[in-house]
Amino acid sequence: MAEKRIGEDTIFFSSYPTIIATASTAGKKEGEGPCAKYFDKVIQDPLYGESTWEKAESKMLLESVRKVLEKARCTYDQIHFMFSGDLLNQITASNFAARELPIPFYGLFGACSTFTEGLTLGGMAIDGGFAQRVLVGASSHYQAAERQYRYPTELGVQRPPTAQRTVTGAGAVILGNDGPGPFLTAATIGRVIDMGISDPLNMGTAMAPAAVHTIVQHFKDTGRNPDYYDVIITGDLASVGKGLAEDLLKKEGYDVSDRYTDCGVMIYKPDADTQAGGSGCACSAVVFSSYFYPLLKEEYQRLLLVSTGALMSPTTYQQGETIPAIAHAVAIERNRPEGK
Amino acid sequence: MAEKRIGEDTIFFSSYPTIIATASTAGKKEGEGPCAKYFDKVIQDPLYGESTWEKAESKMLLESVRKVLEKARCTYDQIHFMFSGDLLNQITASNFAARELPIPFYGLFGACSTFTEGLTLGGMAIDGGFAQRVLVGASSHYQAAERQYRYPTELGVQRPPTAQRTVTGAGAVILGNDGPGPFLTAATIGRVIDMGISDPLNMGTAMAPAAVHTIVQHFKDTGRNPDYYDVIITGDLASVGKGLAEDLLKKEGYDVSDRYTDCGVMIYKPDADTQAGGSGCACSAVVFSSYFYPLLKEEYQRLLLVSTGALMSPTTYQQGETIPAIAHAVAIERNRPEGK
Repeated sequence: MAEKRIGEDTIFFSSYPTIIATASTAGKKEGEGPCAKYFDKVIQDPLYGESTWEKAESKMLLESVRKVLEKARCTYDQIHFMFSGDLLNQITASNFAARELPIPFYGLFGACSTFTEGLTLGGMAIDGGFAQRVLVGASSHYQAAERQYRYPTELGVQRPPTAQRTVTGAGAVILGNDGPGPFLTAATIGRVIDMGISDPLNMGTAMAPAAVHTIVQHFKDTGRNPDYYDVIITGDLASVGKGLAEDLLKKEGYDVSDRYTDCGVMIYKPDADTQAGGSGCACSAVVFSSYFYPLLKEEYQRLLLVSTGALMSPTTYQQGETIPAIAHAVAIERNRPEGK
Repeated sequence: MAEKRIGEDTIFFSSYPTIIATASTAGKKEGEGPCAKYFDKVIQDPLYGESTWEKAESKMLLESVRKVLEKARCTYDQIHFMFSGDLLNQITASNFAARELPIPFYGLFGACSTFTEGLTLGGMAIDGGFAQRVLVGASSHYQAAERQYRYPTELGVQRPPTAQRTVTGAGAVILGNDGPGPFLTAATIGRVIDMGISDPLNMGTAMAPAAVHTIVQHFKDTGRNPDYYDVIITGDLASVGKGLAEDLLKKEGYDVSDRYTDCGVMIYKPDADTQAGGSGCACSAVVFSSYFYPLLKEEYQRLLLVSTGALMSPTTYQQGETIPAIAHAVAIERNRPEGK
């Protein structure tokens, strides 16, 4: 393997880890949106038969994991590691799901960037020869997130148009060292970027500069332009952040407008009363797992998935801090790059 | 690289990532303990010149990072990735420290197992050829952790003898693909183990079975016995959990009693009024970084470091859940194994 050049933020996979299978579970409102028919399961009750929302979230993640194992025809002992995270304090949705799984576990916290954070680490584990199969998961839950980060939903607090709705759902994928593709070909690891936004009801604006930093860095490190990709997808900037990201990219010399979308914009119906759109770890996890993954076998040759995370906590907000953000990008291609 | 055998939890490094430098910052009480003279810095005021404990924790981490960069004579752009985590909700100590660092960032949550979680991932990144230098950090803070997980310290709640004191401190290490050692030779990734303990004032008992599972798995996967190592070190089981781990290991056929210690037992003076001993992400991070790392150049040939984490949250506790735990083991050796 070629030596890394100093100062780069991008890793290049040489053996091209493949995505063997994906699975997704989503909530009722997500199940009324445009991705509805692609989800493996839609739950109608946010409690999902559990006594609390937090337990419901963990159960959704566990079910997505079991579903993806079934689709990949894998047993637990064929999975070397699981990488997973969520938005709950101490990522308990992931930890409590992992308790049920006899699989070595890596807990991650990248807020809503967790899905691609896990994909990049899983890709390294496979490409480095440390594993043949790894699981990557991410989950979030609207009611659980609201009461932890902002206001309990029972209060009925009015939300400004910049607010986003945390996606209720869980996505899981299995990466492997063999298979017909699609393949992970490169990944750009994000830096923590803080442009001074402090409103937790305007996360898209806080996260857009981090997404732009990672996308620009990706183009610089790889020598690629936007037209290398059929589609560039951010995780959960939603409508406010997406427009801002597009403008900022244009200022950097990259016009992505004809091939750019955002999972937070896509996941709900336009009239779903979800303000700027979706957010949460599950947002990019379930939209990729359900909608984009099959399209990589039919329509798209290459896509760049850029999950975006806001790294604040209610405590930092109360202590007067602004909102740092991060974004990790993964290049996923139908075929191995030519000549390899 | 040899293909992984299915069902193993242990990875073997083939190029032997080296620990280039370590740095540690510790609090006042830790600075009165047996490791005092080995810390790079001891802070006297838990606020460390900041307005809150959380900000003080983040500052300690940032200072440890800057110190280790100085010791390793590395610039920011020579570090490919930073892996870091802590106990605060949304790992804000790490996120806010990373905001000041122009380095691609991986946020981890493994509770007090975070330090070895980061070492195993950093080792994979180096050994897989994805990076030449990576940073691994971990931090915790007594007052910040108490008010988040249990009772604010101002309440003066009486603590039972099984309670542990969260270590105030931060450790940071730089791993590289070249250098004179010591070297990471193998790592065993932990599974989430829950034996039904539900008392957040008895974390050592909750974590001991996870430590034992990982250590036994390590011996099985590697074919090694305890006498392969000069010393086996758990992260923060403290006196109650350490005794339990020793007993459980004996039942599994491994007598480690002549070479086993625990960072939580070591960090405070016996009469320091810290109940069973230390805990927290910083516990193994600062004890290893300050005390054990230099000994690997003088006294010890091989050590096994097993940081231990309790994966509960106050929410799961209030919802009647027990405490799952995890432990990750890293084998660190003065020389490259023979014949390599």
